[in-house]
Formats: sequence, structure tokens, C-alpha cells
Amino acid sequence: MSTATTLRKHGSELDGVPAAFVDLETRATKDDHQALRLWLRLLSCTVCVENHVRGRLRQEFSTTLPRFDLMAQLERHPDGLRMSELSQRLMVSGGNVTGITDQLEREKMVARTLNREDRRTITVKLTEVGLKRFREMAASHEQWIIELLGGLNQEDKQVMLGMLRKLKTHSRAFGVPSMNTRLSPLDRGK
Amino acid sequence: MSTATTLRKHGSELDGVPAAFVDLETRATKDDHQALRLWLRLLSCTVCVENHVRGRLRQEFSTTLPRFDLMAQLERHPDGLRMSELSQRLMVSGGNVTGITDQLEREKMVARTLNREDRRTITVKLTEVGLKRFREMAASHEQWIIELLGGLNQEDKQVMLGMLRKLKTHSRAFGVPSMNTRLSPLDRGK
Repeated sequence: MSTATTLRKHGSELDGVPAAFVDLETRATKDDHQALRLWLRLLSCTVCVENHVRGRLRQEFSTTLPRFDLMAQLERHPDGLRMSELSQRLMVSGGNVTGITDQLEREKMVARTLNREDRRTITVKLTEVGLKRFREMAASHEQWIIELLGGLNQEDKQVMLGMLRKLKTHSRAFGVPSMNTRLSPLDRGK
Repeated sequence: MSTATTLRKHGSELDGVPAAFVDLETRATKDDHQALRLWLRLLSCTVCVENHVRGRLRQEFSTTLPRFDLMAQLERHPDGLRMSELSQRLMVSGGNVTGITDQLEREKMVARTLNREDRRTITVKLTEVGLKRFREMAASHEQWIIELLGGLNQEDKQVMLGMLRKLKTHSRAFGVPSMNTRLSPLDRGK
């Protein structure tokens, strides 16, 4: 059970600590560095929105975020993507791209076809059914995001976009120190 | 392989698209809603920092983020936590709390003991060795975060903290629509 669910179940208090403060961010004590506080708040916000989206996708579309992400990538590439390209483009989903593709293929949402230009390679595309389904999900997804981010007005959002651009430009220069997939199921459980 | 690693390997370009733009955020096309753009940027920043931290933890401490998170929670509770409390407090790690605890116990980093007040329940604590190890990791972790967030000056960070507080207060009111663990390994691969 996720922390958010737990908090909802327990109401406003958990072990005497107001629920609003029982989360990742509470790890930062008062004298922790501002950067650490900011990171924990960033992570906590991301987890909160992501959990909500995962729940809604499951509840309203009986699907998962990795499946949604994979279809989102294919929607942006109507000519299809090779499996290797798909893997590169999925950041949230990570893990088992082949397994997700197999599953979506069985459900007739995606199709594997021979590449027109290079007949040795196989590309994955959304089927018509898949595209229709994805667009329904994407429309709902956008509405959820608009709701979830509704605490910020337009100007706030613009300021945040600017700040996050700075953060991103700076932080991505550091790269990833070793082979590492964010969401590898193997890694998660250890 | 993570997208970030792929990008580093491929240098500045991937399929003719500048690497700086090949990530989650590129899913938002120009006419996408501002909220969606902001969400994808937020997610993309989080993934970038998280991937870096995962890589450094592995490289410098041969450990994983879920293990680090679990030890961080125990460090904040010197009297120990029950397994159920630990599960509630771990948001990033999710999944297999028992497995991680077993592993850390074998390495003498944590110990399970009978609760003093209620002898029927078992609490988990950091051992002295575990505490020492955690503090070394935490000091490095904070330095990494300071570096990674170094693109923002103190005022930027303060502004971001304020914005994220608004976002968090608003978005957490929506809760999680169904039973759903963010990082369930079962969920990830599908």
C-alpha cells in the first residue's frame, strides 16, 4: 500500500504526527541543507502526482503507467519505432519493454511490422484501435494533470517551468555514474 | 540501459535530435497544455536527479536507493520502527521491505528486536555499524544533491520550495484513486 493511501485510510493523523507531514519530506530536519529540502519536496510532489495518475489509469482504463508511456511514444512516431528506439525513449517505464509490447500486441493495440526501408528490422506501431484508445487515455491524463497542478496559477507555472529548466540543464550535465535503469524491477526490490 | 546513459554514450545527438531534447519532456508538443509541460518537466528533473543518485550509491557505496531510504527512515527513529511503520514511511522504495530488511540484517546494518513496551511486536533498528555507514552515505548524498541542484541560487531554491508547497498541498488532496504502490516490481514490468 502506498503511503498516500495509508494516509487517507488513517485520516489526518498517523502516530500523532499530522498526516500532511508524514512523507518523504519529513526526512529533512530543520537544519538540513536547503538543497536537500528542495530535492525531497520535488521528489515528494512527483510521487504524489505519479501515484494519482497510476491509480486513475488503473481505475478508469485498467492499464499501467508503463503501458501508457509506451503508447505515448508510439503515438509520437506514426512510422513506428524499433524496439531499441522504444527502450531509449522510455524513461518512466524502464524494465520490460518487450513484455509490455507483447502484451499490447496480444490486445491488438500495437503491431510489429517489417521496416519498409530496412527489411531486416522490425518496427512497432500503434494500431488504429491502439491509437484511438491512447487518445482517450491521453485526454483524460491531461485533465488529471490540469486538476493536480491546479494549485498553481498560470504565472506560477511559468516561473516553475523556468526554474526547472535551469535545474535540468545543470543536473543533466552530471549524467548517470553507472549503468542503471531507473525502474528496473530487479533493482527495486533490493 | 537508462535514457540518460544512452544519451551520454551517444554524445550530443540521437537520431538527429539534440540530446538535450530527447527525454520525457519532448512528449509535450508545442500546443500541449502548460500544466502537462510542467508535469513532464518536473518528472524529467526528478528522474535525472534520481538516476544520478542511484548510480552514485551503487558506484561509491555498492548499495541501492531503496536500501538507503530504509536506513534513512531508521536513522530518524532511534527507538526503531515496526515493519508496518517502515512500509508506511517508505515512499520511494515501496515493494519488498522485508527482503531489504533481511538483507541489511545479514550485513549487520540493522537488527530486529522485541519491542520493550509491547513484547509481542518486533522493531527494526540500525546497528552501530549501520548508523555509521548510513551517516557516511548521507553526507555524500547531501553533497551530490547540492551539486545537482547547483544550477539554482538560494533565492531560486526558496521560490521553488514555495511553489512546490502549493503544488503539494493542492495535489495531495486528490489522493490515490486505488490501491497502488508506486514502485511495485510487479507493476513496473507490465
